[in-house]
Amino acid sequence: MSEKTVVTQWIQGINVPAALISYTYRALQKKFQTDLGQYNLGWGHFIILMILLEQEGLRQDEIALSRGFDKTMIAKSVIRLEEEDLVYRITDPNDRRVRRLYLTETGRRVGPEIRRIGSEISDRVFKDFTQDESKVLLEYLRRIALNASEL
Amino acid sequence: MSEKTVVTQWIQGINVPAALISYTYRALQKKFQTDLGQYNLGWGHFIILMILLEQEGLRQDEIALSRGFDKTMIAKSVIRLEEEDLVYRITDPNDRRVRRLYLTETGRRVGPEIRRIGSEISDRVFKDFTQDESKVLLEYLRRIALNASEL
Repeated sequence: MSEKTVVTQWIQGINVPAALISYTYRALQKKFQTDLGQYNLGWGHFIILMILLEQEGLRQDEIALSRGFDKTMIAKSVIRLEEEDLVYRITDPNDRRVRRLYLTETGRRVGPEIRRIGSEISDRVFKDFTQDESKVLLEYLRRIALNASEL
Repeated sequence: MSEKTVVTQWIQGINVPAALISYTYRALQKKFQTDLGQYNLGWGHFIILMILLEQEGLRQDEIALSRGFDKTMIAKSVIRLEEEDLVYRITDPNDRRVRRLYLTETGRRVGPEIRRIGSEISDRVFKDFTQDESKVLLEYLRRIALNASEL
């Protein structure tokens, strides 16, 4: 049996939603790692970049907390993003313990392209969902995430 | 704003299904890590144990491939499971390159208890879904996982 067949059979047979979520997460992460390899970035870096494209000046520790990330993971990812000249940190003048994150010029330039790569991957995962199905799916995933936040 | 409020607001505002899947995965992983701490096990070990509770004698490399896991991650987890005396490996007599995994007596004894912990966490994440909703959710997650396997 090919690797592909083994995976497909497992997915078709399993009735554990958490296992399917876990599989999907890992498959997404792997694909991001591959497709963002040209930028020397992985999934974690991608998430931080996307957050900063929405809003700059956020606190590093808040990014970690607000998305359920591990603080050490975020700190490591930010160092890499600095090395790649995509992100820089400024110490908050009102509280010297706080570091705020901003996109560099390069970050602002390549950010949208990196977002496009991410959207394409995401679109492929949800490709066969009708508009109505997508709406239901989003609300279900939101409820699951809210429940997970209370674990 | 409390950490909890920040997370809740983010979940309620986000319209990116992949981000919700990613958040849920991390929250689940964190909770498993905490609740399985008494067994010195994390999420990865849990998954392998659950697979072996269903079927023993599987090949280590097949477990990795069939669930989209990283081979190195599985290899490391198996070593820990051996150290904890839950799992042992046997070289396949027909192919000496192949290692097959089995549960030890301890593994068979504590396995069901560990499974119960996992089920409880899982139940809490899907607690407010009616039977019909659960059915739809499972089918949606299955479609997403199948799409993800083709990435």
